[in-house]
Amino acid sequence: MKRDGSNSKVLDMNGRNTLAALTRKLPAVESTAFKAALLASTIGVAAPAWAASADPLPSWNSGAAKDSIIEFVDNVTDPESGQYLPPAKRIATFDNDGTLWSEKPLYFQFYFALDRLKAMAPEHPEWQTTEPFASYLAGDVDKMVAHGEEGVLKVVAATHAGQTTEEFRQAAEQWLKTARHGSTGKLFTEMAFQPMLELLDYLRESDFKTFIVSGGGVDFIRSFAEEVYGIPPYQVVGSSIKATYEVRDGKPVMVKQPEIAFVDDKEGKPVGIHQYIGARPVLAFGNSDGDYQMLDWVTSGEGPSLGLLLHHTDPLREWSYDRKSLVGTLDRGLDDAGEKGWVLVDMKQDWNSVYPVKPADPAQAQLFDHSWQIEYIEGRGVVDNSPAAIDFALDARVAGNSSCNSFSGQYSIEGGDLSFGQLVSTRRACIDSLMDQENRFLDALGRVQQWHISPEGWLFLMDETGYVIMRASALSKEASE
Amino acid sequence: MKRDGSNSKVLDMNGRNTLAALTRKLPAVESTAFKAALLASTIGVAAPAWAASADPLPSWNSGAAKDSIIEFVDNVTDPESGQYLPPAKRIATFDNDGTLWSEKPLYFQFYFALDRLKAMAPEHPEWQTTEPFASYLAGDVDKMVAHGEEGVLKVVAATHAGQTTEEFRQAAEQWLKTARHGSTGKLFTEMAFQPMLELLDYLRESDFKTFIVSGGGVDFIRSFAEEVYGIPPYQVVGSSIKATYEVRDGKPVMVKQPEIAFVDDKEGKPVGIHQYIGARPVLAFGNSDGDYQMLDWVTSGEGPSLGLLLHHTDPLREWSYDRKSLVGTLDRGLDDAGEKGWVLVDMKQDWNSVYPVKPADPAQAQLFDHSWQIEYIEGRGVVDNSPAAIDFALDARVAGNSSCNSFSGQYSIEGGDLSFGQLVSTRRACIDSLMDQENRFLDALGRVQQWHISPEGWLFLMDETGYVIMRASALSKEASE
Repeated sequence: MKRDGSNSKVLDMNGRNTLAALTRKLPAVESTAFKAALLASTIGVAAPAWAASADPLPSWNSGAAKDSIIEFVDNVTDPESGQYLPPAKRIATFDNDGTLWSEKPLYFQFYFALDRLKAMAPEHPEWQTTEPFASYLAGDVDKMVAHGEEGVLKVVAATHAGQTTEEFRQAAEQWLKTARHGSTGKLFTEMAFQPMLELLDYLRESDFKTFIVSGGGVDFIRSFAEEVYGIPPYQVVGSSIKATYEVRDGKPVMVKQPEIAFVDDKEGKPVGIHQYIGARPVLAFGNSDGDYQMLDWVTSGEGPSLGLLLHHTDPLREWSYDRKSLVGTLDRGLDDAGEKGWVLVDMKQDWNSVYPVKPADPAQAQLFDHSWQIEYIEGRGVVDNSPAAIDFALDARVAGNSSCNSFSGQYSIEGGDLSFGQLVSTRRACIDSLMDQENRFLDALGRVQQWHISPEGWLFLMDETGYVIMRASALSKEASE
Repeated sequence: MKRDGSNSKVLDMNGRNTLAALTRKLPAVESTAFKAALLASTIGVAAPAWAASADPLPSWNSGAAKDSIIEFVDNVTDPESGQYLPPAKRIATFDNDGTLWSEKPLYFQFYFALDRLKAMAPEHPEWQTTEPFASYLAGDVDKMVAHGEEGVLKVVAATHAGQTTEEFRQAAEQWLKTARHGSTGKLFTEMAFQPMLELLDYLRESDFKTFIVSGGGVDFIRSFAEEVYGIPPYQVVGSSIKATYEVRDGKPVMVKQPEIAFVDDKEGKPVGIHQYIGARPVLAFGNSDGDYQMLDWVTSGEGPSLGLLLHHTDPLREWSYDRKSLVGTLDRGLDDAGEKGWVLVDMKQDWNSVYPVKPADPAQAQLFDHSWQIEYIEGRGVVDNSPAAIDFALDARVAGNSSCNSFSGQYSIEGGDLSFGQLVSTRRACIDSLMDQENRFLDALGRVQQWHISPEGWLFLMDETGYVIMRASALSKEASE
């Protein structure tokens, strides 16, 4: 890649002459959120990142459920509310299956276990006559469901015994990259709920720590929770099978055993919370009677707390089920929610979107399918080995490297319009040339109003007049990880 | 408290006239670190907080051990080093007994268990003839030590069975507030190692997550880890006794059972790490053969890693022991450290202080023994119900509320001189009057160069000319928590 002045001038000219014509002109809007962010940071007191958009929960419809969440967060973060909680006390726990992503027709981990079971079945004739294996191999859904999450664990334990924990993780990651849901055709990780992703972000931006407390297998969930939910492995509590420490060829490994260690469901959830988190959370969100004890524990503490149950009421966009469903039974929780003061979230009424929207526009798909390495900023080539890059996620989150520091935040896109909300950044210092480039990059980003991907595959970011202020080239997302 | 203008003028005058005479004049030094912080935040890229002082590890002497730590942190945080790790991978695990605090003559939890055992012994005649209880009650130190941390767990399990987890926590907190070490006379929590507190801070400021992975009881450690080490309960992995979920009088409780659930020692440490953290750490710090497997696991991963062992070599300031000690045996670790590439930290050579210095000066003791509620800033009374407060810790850390946001950072004190390093702050927005006061507070704090506590018990903070810029009143530390 050439970075001499003449080349960059050519880009500058090309950009200005060619691309302005390709995109419709916008009025000269100022990037208010970005300026507000800079202004706020000069006085050392930035507004929370979600303040950049007026509504921290855009996929939630107005109503009692949304109000109860926002009121709770406002109260516990306001030192004058009388319900203030210091950040160390702001712990929120979420069930996974049916709460953060779908669970129908069967918990998604069933399919992972089943695929592996089928592959290994020829070597294990005894499985044809032993439960829960026989039901799985026969594809008897009712019986599989009746064996519950413990059945999945048994299958996982049997099919992954002898694997190291790192081999297991690779197998789970690989499966999640390719396996698709039978009726939606989506990758399973694309069936995380958009409103819940927004809620997780909103809580974290309000200095909450967000945890998963799931009946599902902890290692399976950890294989995708950071990427999909932004929840790191040490904030995932779940059921587990036993693992032991061994030294193989002089190297220590952790090896999975064919034995269940802990079932994190029903009364197991507060036990898991005590064991792993060691403090009583103040917010719990579930969707089934398996979450009853967790909600009861969380909302019985002293001081403010909030319990929420997602009620699956949306047969068109997702599923509709409660008391009589074997997967995700919600019966006692429905009866007692009123008395306990738990908030019922009605998916059909309270959510205006369910899954993150995959763009139909092929150019947008191209934007999301790659990471973008910055090559020119304001017509000037970047420094050698520049780490500057930007990565757009489907859920309106953006992340990247601004030359020295990592940044993340939100963006909004509509047709050819693109703009960035407030960005949160790490605070390292680097050599002068990178710091200088970082300042120019962040300044340029704040002025972006339009975007375009050229036939050559370059991403052009432009200001409101259509003037090109940055050019980036596509990187495969995997390579950039 | 009056807050009218005339009153504040009186303070202003008094402060200027009276206090300037009480403190020696300083040259007009500029608070460079604070200005650098403000400057850095205007361009969105602040230097890490420890950059405020030239040396992030002032209690560590120059030498191979200190160099290896700083080089490792520099490498994994520098995108151009070839050893860069993203923040999500920066996980550091610390043993507790003998690594973060002393463990001689016996693990400190022994004394907690013993005190309770003695109190309950009259109701349990069977303990006189059952181990490990009999050895404990007879005060047979050798046998107590021989029963190891598992012996303590058994005593804790027997003496705390039936207690709720919250009752246990209160009992532990209460004990730690009053019980003192037999030979140093210090509270046990005052026997945390100053160099390790600095290391924990340094790592966290470099975007590491710091975990404890201890053979000691997890609930005992959680009762003080946040206050003493800045490590929240969900980042403590330890041995545990079983707890079950019960509903008592309609309220859910977690009840301790007389049964050991998990022993987090030796090969249990990597098992605990896998189970609780779910990712392989890149730094592990221990002091005994009980940490061998943890170090081996951590330093066998792909990519950069650092293993450290604290060698107790200081009979004057702490203790000197290794291969033949029953508590904290370090034998195999000493043999293999060279081959494994683990760094041996020699307490006597590598540390210039061991425990945080408790000030001999009674005025300084008064400064540390209270929280300070700000009453006047630049002669103006604070707004009603102002949360502005400041809290000095012995380890040179300061924390508080700047009117709307929480802040923390470092300070330095010497005689009547006091100044603040860079402060890290939360980023909330509040009503205008608080935001305005916050700006004035932070501005004033940046100019503080001297301090004085008046006979009335007021804390006066002054600039380099002795001019009073803030007045605060003492609050009991407990009340302010």
